[in-house]
Amino acid sequence: MRVVLGIEYNGRAYCGWQHQDHSPSVQEQVEQAVAHVADHDVRVICAGRTDTGVHAYSQVVHFDTTSERSDYSWTFGANTKLPGDISVLWAKHVDENFHARFSATSRIYRYVILNRQIRPGLLKDQVSWECRPLKLKPMQEAAEHLVGEHDFDAYRAVACQASSPVRTLKRLEVSQQGELFILDLEANGFLHHMVRNIAGVLLAIGAGEAEPIWAKQVLDKRDRTQGGVTAPPGGLYFVGVRYPDEYELPSLLTPALLAPSL
Amino acid sequence: MRVVLGIEYNGRAYCGWQHQDHSPSVQEQVEQAVAHVADHDVRVICAGRTDTGVHAYSQVVHFDTTSERSDYSWTFGANTKLPGDISVLWAKHVDENFHARFSATSRIYRYVILNRQIRPGLLKDQVSWECRPLKLKPMQEAAEHLVGEHDFDAYRAVACQASSPVRTLKRLEVSQQGELFILDLEANGFLHHMVRNIAGVLLAIGAGEAEPIWAKQVLDKRDRTQGGVTAPPGGLYFVGVRYPDEYELPSLLTPALLAPSL
Repeated sequence: MRVVLGIEYNGRAYCGWQHQDHSPSVQEQVEQAVAHVADHDVRVICAGRTDTGVHAYSQVVHFDTTSERSDYSWTFGANTKLPGDISVLWAKHVDENFHARFSATSRIYRYVILNRQIRPGLLKDQVSWECRPLKLKPMQEAAEHLVGEHDFDAYRAVACQASSPVRTLKRLEVSQQGELFILDLEANGFLHHMVRNIAGVLLAIGAGEAEPIWAKQVLDKRDRTQGGVTAPPGGLYFVGVRYPDEYELPSLLTPALLAPSL
Repeated sequence: MRVVLGIEYNGRAYCGWQHQDHSPSVQEQVEQAVAHVADHDVRVICAGRTDTGVHAYSQVVHFDTTSERSDYSWTFGANTKLPGDISVLWAKHVDENFHARFSATSRIYRYVILNRQIRPGLLKDQVSWECRPLKLKPMQEAAEHLVGEHDFDAYRAVACQASSPVRTLKRLEVSQQGELFILDLEANGFLHHMVRNIAGVLLAIGAGEAEPIWAKQVLDKRDRTQGGVTAPPGGLYFVGVRYPDEYELPSLLTPALLAPSL
C-alpha cells in the first residue's frame, strides 16, 4: 500500500530534508516515526528536498507499507514519535501510481525578508534580513522578467544535479507587509538554490544596486557566476505542492500566521 | 544619564525576563550587552516582566549610565553582544523622571492560539494550541464582560505580589485569521498570569465548555480557584508599552508577521 503524508516543519534545527551523517534531518525523523507506526523500516520520498534551515508549511511525502493502519493512525501515531517542530498534518492512502515527486505539477515557495536597520530578534531563523531600504516596484518589475518558461541555469547552484535547467516559473509575486517583503513563487519544479538565487538578485535590485532588467540579463547569460548572492535559508518556506485532482489530496493550506495591527 | 531601549526577543530559550539562578534570562543578556557598551555594570528596569517562553515585540527598559554614547551606539553596540534572538530596536536618552515601569500608561499583549486538530510544528513555541474547535462569537461576547476597571483577583496567579488586584482593561479583542485565534489586550497594567488566565477562560468558552457569562462570574467571585486553567506561555507576546507623549519615544511598532494567502 502507498500512503501520502502532508508534513509541516520548522527547519531551524535540521540539516534539511535529506539524510546527512553529520546532523539530524527531517527525513530521518519522519522515517523513524512512520517506522514506529508501521512496525517495519520505511523509506519516505518527498516532493521537494529542502536545505538546511528551510521551513515547510506542507511538504508532501509518500511511502510503501505492508501494515494496515487508518489515515488517522498514520497521522496521530507518527506525531507521538516526532519532535515538536515536525508535525504530520494529514495522511491518505493512494494508488501506487502516485509519486510524491514525479506526480507533482507544481511546487510553491515563499521567501520572507525583514527589511529594517535592526537585525531580526523575535523572528530569528524565520526571516531573511536586509538592512538596506528596499523598493517594492523595481523588485516587482524584475520579477516579471523571470516568469514563464526559461533556462534558469544562471539561477541554480553550481552543484545542482538536475539534467535540464529549464523550468516554468508560473508565478513570482513580490509584496510588502510593513517591514516584511514577501516573494511568492510557483513553478513546475525548482532547481537547487533557485529560490534563494532569485531572492538574491531581487534583493540587489530592490536595494538599488542594479536595474530591474538585470534579472533578465542574468537569466540570458546562463552563467551562475554572473548572478547575485544566494540569499540565506532562514526566510525560505516550502508552502506546498499541487497534484492532479484525481489523487484527491487535501487542498493546499492557507497558512495564516501572525499578522498583528496595533 | 538615563537611557531607554526598545527590545524585541524570542522567549523560547529564556526563563523569562527576570534573573534566575537556574537558566538564562533576557535581563541578564541585555545587562551584559549594555554593560559592554557602557564599560561599567548596568542594571536595567523593564516595563513588564515576561514569563518563561513569552516573546516581546517591544519590551521597554531604562538604565542609568555615566558613559556618553550616541543612541546609535547603544543600539548597535548592544546588538553586537546580544544573542541572535534578542535585538535592541532603538535607544533614546530621556529625562531622569522617566521610569520604564512607573511612567507607562498602558501595556499591550497579544495571545495567539492555533486552533486545529494537529499540534503546531512550524510554529512550535510561538503559538498556543487548542485542538477543540473554537467559536469566535462566544469568545468575543465573553471578552466584553472583562473590559473596564475590575478587581481581577480571580484572573491572577496565586503567587501574584501586586498590592491591588484592580486593573483597567482598556481593550480585549478576539479575532480569527484562518486557524489562528488572536487575543489583543491593553490595560494600564497586568497582574501575574492575567493574560494567560483570561486566555484560559476564553478558550473554555470558545470550546463550548461554558457560556460567555462565565467570564463575568469568575470575575465576580474574585477567587482564583474558580477560574479556568492558565493557558501556556508560548503563544504570548508582549507587544508594547504606551508612555506620555512628553517623552517622545518611538511610536509602537506594527509587527507584521507572516500572513500568507495562496
